[in-house]
Amino acid sequence: MYRLPAEIGARVEEIDTPALLIDLSAFERNVRKMAEFAQARGLRCRPHAKTHRCPTIALKQIAAGAVGQCCQKVGEAEALVRGGVLVSNQVVSEAKLRRLAALAVDARVGLCFDAPEQIEVAARVARDFGVELDALVEIEVGMQRCGVAPGEPARELAGRIAEAPGLRFRGLQAYQGAAQHLATWKERERAIESAAQSVRATLEALDRAGIDCAIVGGAGTGTYALEGASGLWNELQVGSYIFMDVEYGRILARDGGRYSDFEHSLFVLATVMSAPSPERAVLDAGLKSYSAEQGMPWVHGRTDLEVYGIADEHSKVRLGADSARLKLGDKLLLIPSHCDPTVNLHDWYVGVRNGRVEALWPITGRGASS
Amino acid sequence: MYRLPAEIGARVEEIDTPALLIDLSAFERNVRKMAEFAQARGLRCRPHAKTHRCPTIALKQIAAGAVGQCCQKVGEAEALVRGGVLVSNQVVSEAKLRRLAALAVDARVGLCFDAPEQIEVAARVARDFGVELDALVEIEVGMQRCGVAPGEPARELAGRIAEAPGLRFRGLQAYQGAAQHLATWKERERAIESAAQSVRATLEALDRAGIDCAIVGGAGTGTYALEGASGLWNELQVGSYIFMDVEYGRILARDGGRYSDFEHSLFVLATVMSAPSPERAVLDAGLKSYSAEQGMPWVHGRTDLEVYGIADEHSKVRLGADSARLKLGDKLLLIPSHCDPTVNLHDWYVGVRNGRVEALWPITGRGASS
Repeated sequence: MYRLPAEIGARVEEIDTPALLIDLSAFERNVRKMAEFAQARGLRCRPHAKTHRCPTIALKQIAAGAVGQCCQKVGEAEALVRGGVLVSNQVVSEAKLRRLAALAVDARVGLCFDAPEQIEVAARVARDFGVELDALVEIEVGMQRCGVAPGEPARELAGRIAEAPGLRFRGLQAYQGAAQHLATWKERERAIESAAQSVRATLEALDRAGIDCAIVGGAGTGTYALEGASGLWNELQVGSYIFMDVEYGRILARDGGRYSDFEHSLFVLATVMSAPSPERAVLDAGLKSYSAEQGMPWVHGRTDLEVYGIADEHSKVRLGADSARLKLGDKLLLIPSHCDPTVNLHDWYVGVRNGRVEALWPITGRGASS
Repeated sequence: MYRLPAEIGARVEEIDTPALLIDLSAFERNVRKMAEFAQARGLRCRPHAKTHRCPTIALKQIAAGAVGQCCQKVGEAEALVRGGVLVSNQVVSEAKLRRLAALAVDARVGLCFDAPEQIEVAARVARDFGVELDALVEIEVGMQRCGVAPGEPARELAGRIAEAPGLRFRGLQAYQGAAQHLATWKERERAIESAAQSVRATLEALDRAGIDCAIVGGAGTGTYALEGASGLWNELQVGSYIFMDVEYGRILARDGGRYSDFEHSLFVLATVMSAPSPERAVLDAGLKSYSAEQGMPWVHGRTDLEVYGIADEHSKVRLGADSARLKLGDKLLLIPSHCDPTVNLHDWYVGVRNGRVEALWPITGRGASS
């Protein structure tokens, strides 16, 4: 945070590197496209703030029609609470629940449950603060991570929540995270169909017990069209659609081509700092400027260049046989392989349009993982 | 930075998670061991601040005998300049060189060169500020990243630097980063022997030209004993030895056992947030609390537990057949697979000893990658 990353009005070539860039026009088209998708189908859109960790972006999504934000951590909720927020995750420590209840004094705040032990402490803390917390029951829909079994076990947990003063049972959290990254559209269809069966069984159990279920939340950028068309999910928790990344970019779409529902709008700007041989150049951005657990970044607009080696502060780029040699000071745009953890490495977004810096947005929730 | 991560004097079990912990006793033994190694052989020890990005740790290393710090970026130098600093990297933009020259008003500051284009601008900026910058010529010693070819090309660059007012030629940067992570000690010996030939050839060329070479810098935690015994390198740029990580922990040592020159002293403390089945538990720390491009973290002191799945804010742990079931709120220590980028995700170190919080050290250089 100690230095501004760029001057408003500067040309892109003048931005000091590494820097995290947003192509504002592409970003705005992505926000609009998802908002229109949700609106056309009568779905609530609650974008996931774990992707951007930035109140400026949250407000832009809400201005486009989003009902509020999801987040993954209490710290993110603290950074983003205006507009209402759902922690789409379990919160188990009393200290964290107190921080969350304090936010509920001013905003509508929810969280997820998958174990009865959570209920007593959350309800007690909510009563201490004189607030009600929205509660979703997270069900296991194929991700094999958190979540109670669908059907009767979920119904039982929902019943306990409905009886707990301080908590307000609102519905189900049914996110199939693993489906987002399956290699083909066909596999993703199968995964979401299987998740839908779990949702359906749970809704039937709730209905038999007379428990009202207002919300079925879930869906990510890789499958939102499937959940959105299911007639079951009514709240989309999409995150990465605003930015895209290599991981989303390389999956196969319905027609066998690359997934292109949304545009790449997030880049790490890097400078050539060494060019020791005609076939190799070294950039001044590495693991501390983009996350790499999903593989190498792509070089935007330059299919002749390949990132083949990374270190803390370096990326090695291989030039194609016909590539013009890169020289010291040349700048390249890298598309990160995974946008959410990449954003979390930076303090600022540098918003650019027509080759000029137009906006600097602080990543207020950077590091807010507790 | 917005909240303190723990209270001094709190018990480890009371620390909110995820948190970055240092076992202070293990850390101190690591610092002492490397300092003694260097002292016994008459070597300068210039530990790498890219690992810790923390002035508190830099001062402790200097108090133990280090001659100063290495860093990789001008931003790190700004965070750490007391004690003198070498940017063990190329700095190509004039804006960055100005920041570096400004630091040289108060401290002894150096940087690396591998191209003649760098010399003119660096010398001009140094003269503008009325300072002299120390200059090392980086030579290629097997990492295939930055660096001029050893021998004559390196000698030629050194000669140009020696003639440039504002720059002071001090020696060679000869870091074989790829050797640090070769799977066996034998491979690492071969890699450093090959690097030594390049250093020797360059020293001979410099000697023939009558250019004095005071420093030969390089060596990392995985090979320091080899460079240290070579009679060529006289400045060790070790970083990870203070903390260790999975990547350093799993390489094979001289005797075929695991590498154990230094102790694991850095951990991410995580809490069990969901335990949906007897063989699986989910922790509240993920990609935003540790870096994973080198693979999964280890669970410290629990060989019966295996991290097998990670997401932004979750780690999935597989329990062994004989493991006691983990329950909500249980805490585990994770050893990150790569310490440097893990540290860069946090704002604070929580220093613990005998189960109590003893120190909170700010990671002042967090995010300082420009």
